[in-house]
Amino acid sequence: MTGEHSSKQYDQELEAIRSKVLLMGGMVETQFDEALECFRTGDTARADRVMAEDQAVNQLEVQLDDACSHLIVRRQPTANDLRTVMASIKVITDLERIGDEASKIARTSKSLYERGSTSFAHYDMIRTIARATGELLHNALDAFARLDGKQALELIAADESIDHEFRTILRNLITFMMEDPRTISSALDTLWVAKAIERVGDHAKNIAEYVIYVVEGRDIRHSKPAVIEQPAI
Amino acid sequence: MTGEHSSKQYDQELEAIRSKVLLMGGMVETQFDEALECFRTGDTARADRVMAEDQAVNQLEVQLDDACSHLIVRRQPTANDLRTVMASIKVITDLERIGDEASKIARTSKSLYERGSTSFAHYDMIRTIARATGELLHNALDAFARLDGKQALELIAADESIDHEFRTILRNLITFMMEDPRTISSALDTLWVAKAIERVGDHAKNIAEYVIYVVEGRDIRHSKPAVIEQPAI
Repeated sequence: MTGEHSSKQYDQELEAIRSKVLLMGGMVETQFDEALECFRTGDTARADRVMAEDQAVNQLEVQLDDACSHLIVRRQPTANDLRTVMASIKVITDLERIGDEASKIARTSKSLYERGSTSFAHYDMIRTIARATGELLHNALDAFARLDGKQALELIAADESIDHEFRTILRNLITFMMEDPRTISSALDTLWVAKAIERVGDHAKNIAEYVIYVVEGRDIRHSKPAVIEQPAI
Repeated sequence: MTGEHSSKQYDQELEAIRSKVLLMGGMVETQFDEALECFRTGDTARADRVMAEDQAVNQLEVQLDDACSHLIVRRQPTANDLRTVMASIKVITDLERIGDEASKIARTSKSLYERGSTSFAHYDMIRTIARATGELLHNALDAFARLDGKQALELIAADESIDHEFRTILRNLITFMMEDPRTISSALDTLWVAKAIERVGDHAKNIAEYVIYVVEGRDIRHSKPAVIEQPAI
């Protein structure tokens, strides 16, 4: 790797981008946790804050895309560094969409509580998927921070169990709705929240895949599990 | 490096990327149309083909990301060309996700018809949103092909009417489900399809925004409509 790039300032610029991506990651992680707290407690002021926070996340997305463009022009990165920039560009998009999903959860929570329908045990339904997805997101960001390809690989499987949990929730909600049509409206709100959580899981998985791309220099998106588990040469 | 021959070759490389993005666009447009046809007719063999096609779309995504990386390394694009490459990297991601949504529509259609529940007028519910979204996607790809910033601007508003139509469908479906709980399962399948269509609309809007970024060199994502409509300086 000697001589791949020479200037110390260049390293700093690349590191600044990575740090800012991680900052953005921390922001959407908090947004997601807070949105679920709104759904649990019905704190509508908190829901408003989660939705307002989305603007800061969106601004960071635009700034970061810009920083990546500028780095490419001025520094003309190659090999490993270019992979880092390319992965950052993709990760930024996923983070912004996690922010969108968190906003949707906050908005749905607000609407649910404003209609006064809190008798339905909506939070219990999504407790498991919420916890698993929060963990997946946290670990994906951690893998990106430490560029840990091994950890990232393990996370791909975690997303499958989240998808499975989502299908279980869907079946349960259908049963509730059929037994008591008065729950339909609350059940659908719960379904939207579960769907948003499942999408956050998809985005977290994407982030893990980009970590593997940076570390191993191979693109495992759309590969079968058997291929994914082969060690990098 | 800047001889006439090599710069001509450079233009060809950039154009090859743009053409391949448009090829991918055509593929997902067909996938989307075909998936809706499955939902309308219950043609399950066609549904299988739509899902199989997704692999070709996914492969094209990986190839194109790779081509963009290589072009950046070898040609070190600046200004307008770099914006084209950056926008292509983002558009590719949106196209791949449109393919995912088309697959979901095909899968849901198959499941709906295999359960034999075709009495519910599910296709009528989504006819309007499907037509509007198909048009939006087609026009967004057209704007990308011709790098027409003006057309792209007009499309941003089209997405809002799609979101509005989705909320109308949701209200109607809730009414159906409440009136006759036996329709819940079919109504939910219809809801998933409507949701997938609405997401395709979001992705098409993203593509329009990237066209504006390439043409005008400004990033209008997350801008208020009033800001968006200001002419570029």
